Amino acid sequence: MSRRSFLKKSGLNAGLGVIVGAQSLTASASNNAAAKLPTLAWRMASSFGKNLDTIYGAAETFCNRVKELTDGNFTIRPFAANEIVPFNQVLDAVQSGTIEMGHTASYYYFGKDPTFAFDTAVPFGLTSRQQTAWMLQGNGMKLMREFFAEYNVVNFLGGNTGTQMGGWFRKEIKEPDDLKGLKFRVGGFAGKVLTKLGTVPQQIVSADIYPALEKGTIDAAEWVGPYDDEKLGFYKVAKVYHYPGWWEGGAQLSFYVTKKEWDKLPRLYQAAIEVASLEAHTEMQARYDARNPLALARLISNGINLKPFPQKVMDVCFQAAQETFTEEQAKNPKFKKIYTDWVTFRNNQAQWFNAAEQSFARASFGKALK
Amino acid sequence: MSRRSFLKKSGLNAGLGVIVGAQSLTASASNNAAAKLPTLAWRMASSFGKNLDTIYGAAETFCNRVKELTDGNFTIRPFAANEIVPFNQVLDAVQSGTIEMGHTASYYYFGKDPTFAFDTAVPFGLTSRQQTAWMLQGNGMKLMREFFAEYNVVNFLGGNTGTQMGGWFRKEIKEPDDLKGLKFRVGGFAGKVLTKLGTVPQQIVSADIYPALEKGTIDAAEWVGPYDDEKLGFYKVAKVYHYPGWWEGGAQLSFYVTKKEWDKLPRLYQAAIEVASLEAHTEMQARYDARNPLALARLISNGINLKPFPQKVMDVCFQAAQETFTEEQAKNPKFKKIYTDWVTFRNNQAQWFNAAEQSFARASFGKALK
Repeated sequence: MSRRSFLKKSGLNAGLGVIVGAQSLTASASNNAAAKLPTLAWRMASSFGKNLDTIYGAAETFCNRVKELTDGNFTIRPFAANEIVPFNQVLDAVQSGTIEMGHTASYYYFGKDPTFAFDTAVPFGLTSRQQTAWMLQGNGMKLMREFFAEYNVVNFLGGNTGTQMGGWFRKEIKEPDDLKGLKFRVGGFAGKVLTKLGTVPQQIVSADIYPALEKGTIDAAEWVGPYDDEKLGFYKVAKVYHYPGWWEGGAQLSFYVTKKEWDKLPRLYQAAIEVASLEAHTEMQARYDARNPLALARLISNGINLKPFPQKVMDVCFQAAQETFTEEQAKNPKFKKIYTDWVTFRNNQAQWFNAAEQSFARASFGKALK
Repeated sequence: MSRRSFLKKSGLNAGLGVIVGAQSLTASASNNAAAKLPTLAWRMASSFGKNLDTIYGAAETFCNRVKELTDGNFTIRPFAANEIVPFNQVLDAVQSGTIEMGHTASYYYFGKDPTFAFDTAVPFGLTSRQQTAWMLQGNGMKLMREFFAEYNVVNFLGGNTGTQMGGWFRKEIKEPDDLKGLKFRVGGFAGKVLTKLGTVPQQIVSADIYPALEKGTIDAAEWVGPYDDEKLGFYKVAKVYHYPGWWEGGAQLSFYVTKKEWDKLPRLYQAAIEVASLEAHTEMQARYDARNPLALARLISNGINLKPFPQKVMDVCFQAAQETFTEEQAKNPKFKKIYTDWVTFRNNQAQWFNAAEQSFARASFGKALK
């Protein structure tokens, strides 16, 4: 078989993308194998440290699987937050093409455009399952891909934490007035909503939360949920653990690929990224679901005060969120376009999930089996 | 490169499995490519008809992805229920090696051993997310693999329906006594539990449910949920739609591979099956989550009577389920072994899911956003 017909049969053509280390094409056996699976070495910047092992672990799962599916020819090396790119500049690095991939939470770029939040979580929005359904089987992925194209990014699902906790509070929140003047380490959309209620959002990095809470420089801080929060020890200095984190009912993580490199990939490598990202996505939620219950039990045994936000507090927050959405739509056509689709999907979910899923959950979670 | 060293380098050995259409191995380029990706043509028997397009669609998603990840060399052709294997004999066909793969619900084989139910759903058991977490990040997959090994099967996650509905009832169930003498089309574990409460489980195939409900030959029938049930038209002949299906809070589907063929697969093809099955798994839940809400709204507009089972009915069913588990453990060591792990995982989940997830769901599903 001639080289030309072999390449044709293999479904390959001249546009093999960036081939790093591939030998020149000849008719010999080993080099045709190299042509079939070009050797690529990419880098992925994560927004997360290795201490967030459930989230960072998803990047490792992804990279290992892509390597395996390409017989070791396509390697993507993950780097923890700040190793090669500051944790909150992963978008910029992928956009500029400095690195080929990122693993991040899109709402970190809320300051550039609140529309990014639809790729992670929006207050009083979707649960983990609903977010995945909107992305994969609603219009979510289509709409977000359009949005990300302006940033030279092709986005993929990259995990979900499930509903996060409301955070650690030095004093219990008993009524809406307790939110006034509260110095609360919380960012993005939640911060914007809570500002309407008099809260003073604080933006400090994770390492500084503990001392700030201990000294009372801040009154409260939210991080993720029991498994991650336990490791940072917040329960030692702020005993009230409020739930839920109504601003992230199912916080999705995302993989970013710089569009120029994506377009050059052989279809087989694109397929490997598609399927490996979804595996990492599903595995992350499973890890949190397996770990959070045990961590919460340990925290409770350490004497924390586990408390829901009172209903009247939830109500004023819901109202403030609605006002924020209305304002943002009025001034941001991109936000409005996606919100319109998203809110319809969200509202449609309520009746169904209130029926079978919720009643089963109440019945099942309410009683222990022997 | 000699044939021997090439094969060694490729991680292949003499046991290439069933190679259909592969040319004989020589040192020429095209044939070495064939050795790297042997041509395999497998068949997959589904337990589901094409009318259950969400479930059957997962088999198609899986087969398409495996083909793509192997550059078209590993094809698996799905067959709908009863095309090549009776819908409830998929296990037997894979066990005997008549076919290489199946896509089924393991609780169809409850009659052989109730232990199969842990691979699908157990009454008052796990939700969809919890089932996935137990399988992937608890001991579920490990324990089920041990169990399936006795049937020459290697099992993989193959989708989840989410919480199913309790079914269609000609008369509303208002109290436990209404379960006595009820001719209810329901199978497996639920049938066994309900027998304790005087219900008479009926086993009839899907095509016969509608006429039986219409004539009153049976009093009630459960199928799946709004999206699938709507297509069969049960709402026209039995107006009460009860929830939840407490016997399947998150019914998992499974892919089966006959062990002998699995062991012969090149590692790359095993990886393709692992990752494509998980993609199909996640996509199925997303499809149901996107479709069920709209179907439920249509059913309601058709005048159905959507009703939860009363709490006292749920309570007696829970008690009857507990008795059934206790009895089964006493006589079935395999059941007992897995139940012991499973029930610990299940009970641990309750506190966490009752906190953040459930309170978020109540807050979010309770109110529409504009």
